[in-house]
Order: sequence, then C-alpha cells, then structure tokens
Amino acid sequence: MPATSRRFLLAAVPVGLPKESDFKLVEAPLPAPDPGQVVVKTVYLSVDPYMRGRITGVRTYADPVHVGELMVGGTVGQVIESRDPSLQPGDYVVGAWGWQDHVSAPAAYLRKLNPQVAPVSTALGVLGMPGMTAYFGFLDLCQPKAGETVVVSGAAGAVGSLVGQIAKIKDCRVIGIAGADDKITYIVNDLGYDSAFNYKTTTDYGARLKDLCPKGIDCYFDNVGGVISDAVFTLLNPFARVSVCGQISQYNLQSPEQGPRLLSQILVKQLKVEGFIVTRFQERWAQGIAQMAQWMKEGRIKYHEDIVEGFENTPRAFIDMLEGKNTGKMLVKA
Amino acid sequence: MPATSRRFLLAAVPVGLPKESDFKLVEAPLPAPDPGQVVVKTVYLSVDPYMRGRITGVRTYADPVHVGELMVGGTVGQVIESRDPSLQPGDYVVGAWGWQDHVSAPAAYLRKLNPQVAPVSTALGVLGMPGMTAYFGFLDLCQPKAGETVVVSGAAGAVGSLVGQIAKIKDCRVIGIAGADDKITYIVNDLGYDSAFNYKTTTDYGARLKDLCPKGIDCYFDNVGGVISDAVFTLLNPFARVSVCGQISQYNLQSPEQGPRLLSQILVKQLKVEGFIVTRFQERWAQGIAQMAQWMKEGRIKYHEDIVEGFENTPRAFIDMLEGKNTGKMLVKA
Repeated sequence: MPATSRRFLLAAVPVGLPKESDFKLVEAPLPAPDPGQVVVKTVYLSVDPYMRGRITGVRTYADPVHVGELMVGGTVGQVIESRDPSLQPGDYVVGAWGWQDHVSAPAAYLRKLNPQVAPVSTALGVLGMPGMTAYFGFLDLCQPKAGETVVVSGAAGAVGSLVGQIAKIKDCRVIGIAGADDKITYIVNDLGYDSAFNYKTTTDYGARLKDLCPKGIDCYFDNVGGVISDAVFTLLNPFARVSVCGQISQYNLQSPEQGPRLLSQILVKQLKVEGFIVTRFQERWAQGIAQMAQWMKEGRIKYHEDIVEGFENTPRAFIDMLEGKNTGKMLVKA
Repeated sequence: MPATSRRFLLAAVPVGLPKESDFKLVEAPLPAPDPGQVVVKTVYLSVDPYMRGRITGVRTYADPVHVGELMVGGTVGQVIESRDPSLQPGDYVVGAWGWQDHVSAPAAYLRKLNPQVAPVSTALGVLGMPGMTAYFGFLDLCQPKAGETVVVSGAAGAVGSLVGQIAKIKDCRVIGIAGADDKITYIVNDLGYDSAFNYKTTTDYGARLKDLCPKGIDCYFDNVGGVISDAVFTLLNPFARVSVCGQISQYNLQSPEQGPRLLSQILVKQLKVEGFIVTRFQERWAQGIAQMAQWMKEGRIKYHEDIVEGFENTPRAFIDMLEGKNTGKMLVKA
C-alpha cells in the first residue's frame, strides 16, 4: 500500500459556480489498516448536483463540508489490503469515502460489488444513489398511473434519464426537458421519451409544454426548479403530484431568486408537492436495486456514463456537471 | 308562498376587493314546486373566502359564476311548502341555493337538520363546510402527532378557529396568526391556542414565530399565503406538512404577486405541501360531522358566529369577511 493518499479538500466556500481553486489537492498519510479495516484504491468517483448544496457553508439536511475538510462523495474502489475476513484484495467495493484516491476504512462501511452482475461503475449510477433517487423518488412520491402524462426536468442527467424510462415502464406518456440538442436526441431515440425539448433554444416553455402535453401534466419530477418549474406548474392537472428532487437552476445563485407564488395553484388544483433526500428510502434500497437490475437485464432500462479520466480532474468534472455538460451519469476514473 | 324571490346576481367581475355594486339585487318569479320539490325560505346565508375565487371570471376547480348569474353559496332555510314526503313545512334544511331569499328545490338536494342537536346555523359552520374543511384538511393532510408544533394562519376565522382546537385535542402546541388584538385574545383565552400574534401590529414575522416556536414548526395550516406563509416556511422542520386551505392575502390582488421560491425549501427539508378543496372528503362528511358534534358536546370545540341581519346586506357581509372583520363564522340572517 502507498504511504499517502491524495485528497481534495474544500479550499473556499464557492461564490456562484464553483471554480477549480475552490478545491485544494493535498497529500495526506494513509494509515495502515486496523483490524476490521481494509485499504481501498479508488477506481471511480461520483460527482453529483447535491454536492453543491453541501459546500454552501450552511447546514441544510446535513452539516456542511467546512473549508479545509475532505470533499464528500460516493466512490467505487478495489481492495488492495485487508484486515477483515469479509473482503479480499482484488474485491470491488462501493462506499462514500469522498474525493481521495486511497482510503483505509472499516469493511463494515463498504458494500462488496459483483462485477459479473454489472460493471462496478453502475454502483454510483443506475444501481446506486442516482438509481434509487429515480426509483423511489418517482414511484413513491408521484404514484404514476398508466396513461398519465409525466414531465421530467434535467431529463438527460443521471437521475432524469432513469425517471423517464421508469415512467415508460409504467405506461405513462413522458416528456423531457434538457439543455442540449444531443441530449434531446438521446432521450427520445435511445431512452424512449415520447417527446422532449431543449430549454436553451426554446423561448416560450409554457407554449411548448402545452403543445407536448395536450392533456395537461399529472406528474412532475423536478431536478431543476426556477422558470422551468414555473411553466410546468401552470399546466399541472388537478391532483397532480410533484416530486422535488433537485433545484439545480438555483444552486449557484448568489442571492435567492423571486418567482411567481405557487401556493394558490397548489390550493386550487389540489396538488401534492413533496421534496425528498434519497437516504429516507435506505431501508428499501436493496429492493430498489434488485428491480432496477432486473429491468436492465430485460433491456428496459439503459444508462449512459460520461467518464472523465484522472483523479486530479475531479473538481473540473464536478463543475462541468453543474453546467450540464454531461449526458447521463458523470464519473471520474481515478 | 310568495310569488317572487329576491336574488343577488353577479353584476360585474370584481377588480381587487369586491364592491357592493359588483352584485345586483333582483326580484325573480318563484316557481311553484313540482312533485319531489319543496319551497324553502332562507334563514341563514354563508359568506366564505372561497367565493372570491368563484367570481374571477376564470375557471379554477369549478366553473366561475358569470355576470348575470345567481351568486353561489351555502344556505340554511325553513320549508314553507312541500311536495315531497321527506320534508314538512317547518322543517329546517341545509343546502347550497345561493344568495336568494326563497327557493323551489328538489328535496333530494337538501339535508334535513335537527334543531335539537345544535342550532341550525351551525350547519354552515362548525357542523358544515368550514367544520369539515378544518377536520379533514388538518387531520388528513397534516397528520399531526402529539407534541408537534402547529401554526394556523387566519386563526380566528371560521376554519382556523376550529383547526387550532382540533390540534389541541391532538395534544399539539398551537400558535395562531390573526389580524386583530381582540381575535388574538379570543383564540388564546377562549379557544386554548398556546400563543398567537397580530400580524398587523408585528413587523418581523420570522422573529416572532421563532420566539413562539422554539422547536420549529411541524404542521402549517394555511388560510392566508403571501408574506405570512413565507415566514412560516423558513421555520418548518424536516418532514413538516403544509395543508394549503386558503390564500386570502392573494384573492384581491390585481396582478399576481412574486415571492421567494419555495421549492428549494421543500426539497431540502423534505416537506409535503398539499392543497385541497373540501368536496374531496364528501364521502366521509357524515363521520366528520359526528366527531365534531361529539367534541362540541364534550365542550372541547367552541365556535363563534358573527351574524349580519338582513338579506339585503349579504354583499356587505361578504366584503367585510374578505377584509377580516369577522371572528369565527360570518353569516347573514335573512
């Protein structure tokens, strides 16, 4: 095992869109494993929108990452030394040891992966946190019924690309909103979205949505917020359900944005609007992963990974993801 | 039976706060009852916030009252002639024949009242639509648990005054927001609210709420919306539930108001925000009325009526109610 690990610490609380200089690469001693621990070499790092919310310096649903602390995140790696009988060198594991290229960690904090079942990178995507976010966040909160119209914002991202496919499995009509023409092509041609539009080249979202959703909208899975959600809300049907998964349009604002008040629409249309953090479904995670794996095997769920090579490029990959440069799941290969 | 009935028609779609001239008093022929019908003399008319939403000229959850049409509303009356075996002259009934002082109506559309059980006026309040709005809208949507903190806006109104009492029955800590010092005194001293404040004489709602809700807010029953709800949202706890019953602060606005975006808070705090129209609970109405009547008998639910004398004063009473001049249920005695 190496004597040190490379780690990215938070160097500054970002103002607006994070910069690479908001993170600092350091070398830290890698402790020898205690009994019950293993040493893992990082293979994949996940970069996800939620991370922006963890580096605002303010407590939200969890304590923030403070300046000088290791950046958090989901990770997949390979065991290179083991002092626990449950794991052998060569085994792949998934965990959340953050932005570091090696770690000594208790085996109990890691989940062993079977590379025969699916590529190990999927433990950070379709068979991991983003997959469970899509699966439970959509099915539990939206309760979609066959024939209903579902709109997904951030439709080509790690979560949105799965939500649309799950909605198709549930026999819904599915409309996606994304920010690039190739993303639109991808989600319609490859993933089976019924239709989609590029919000960056569309001026009147309301008119476009009305066109694509002649029967109104019954379920809205929101990754984005802001003016896109404003437009969707005006077309929600009575008793529509909104699953609030992300608000990426708001994460880099330097002062909170005002918008049209939504409570009157929530009242008159008897809407149910619910937010969630995926950890609330932790007890049913295994069941969700089994179902997603089954659908993948049947060819009903596809996924795409955008992989950035090189541990040192993790901050750049994170920033690119926040700017919507990825299609599907954004990963770093260490 | 008289040959005619007096009726208030909508004369104009109100701009901002309705004026008396937005309604027109006319005399219309009162048809003789067909078989199965009865003639009823109106005794009480209900004026309620929801009526403002019905006269905007725009379809919401129901078709609007058009100019020239009879104004809608709940009513209690006494049968003066009957061609149906189920009702006799002298019987009291509740229905929704709108702003008219007599009506010929099918007996099947009316519900007979027992004046021995409760004053017949309560069929328009605690044992009627406002009572069921409070009962189901609070218990079903907020799912309050003992020890939780509940905030009610419009806390001294027909619905809010009942919500607070139901919350106390469920062993919650209950904070009310209302717009007059005598209302504050009433809900704390007579109805048992733990505390309350007058939003018209308070400048910093957030600070006041923080003071009164040291453990944050778990349930919010919203009759008001606008800046009051903005302040409440900032203090909602993780997994808090919001029942959106009314938005009276917004009803008379001539252009929609902007406000802070709420979806980020809904996301991060995993809130559930749900709107409702009381008719959705219609099938369980009898059960709700039985429970409220039982609580009244036990002295655990009190109610107050503000009664305006004279059918011709119905528009004035409606406007006064929209301006918050009532405590408890606003009624007109015809």
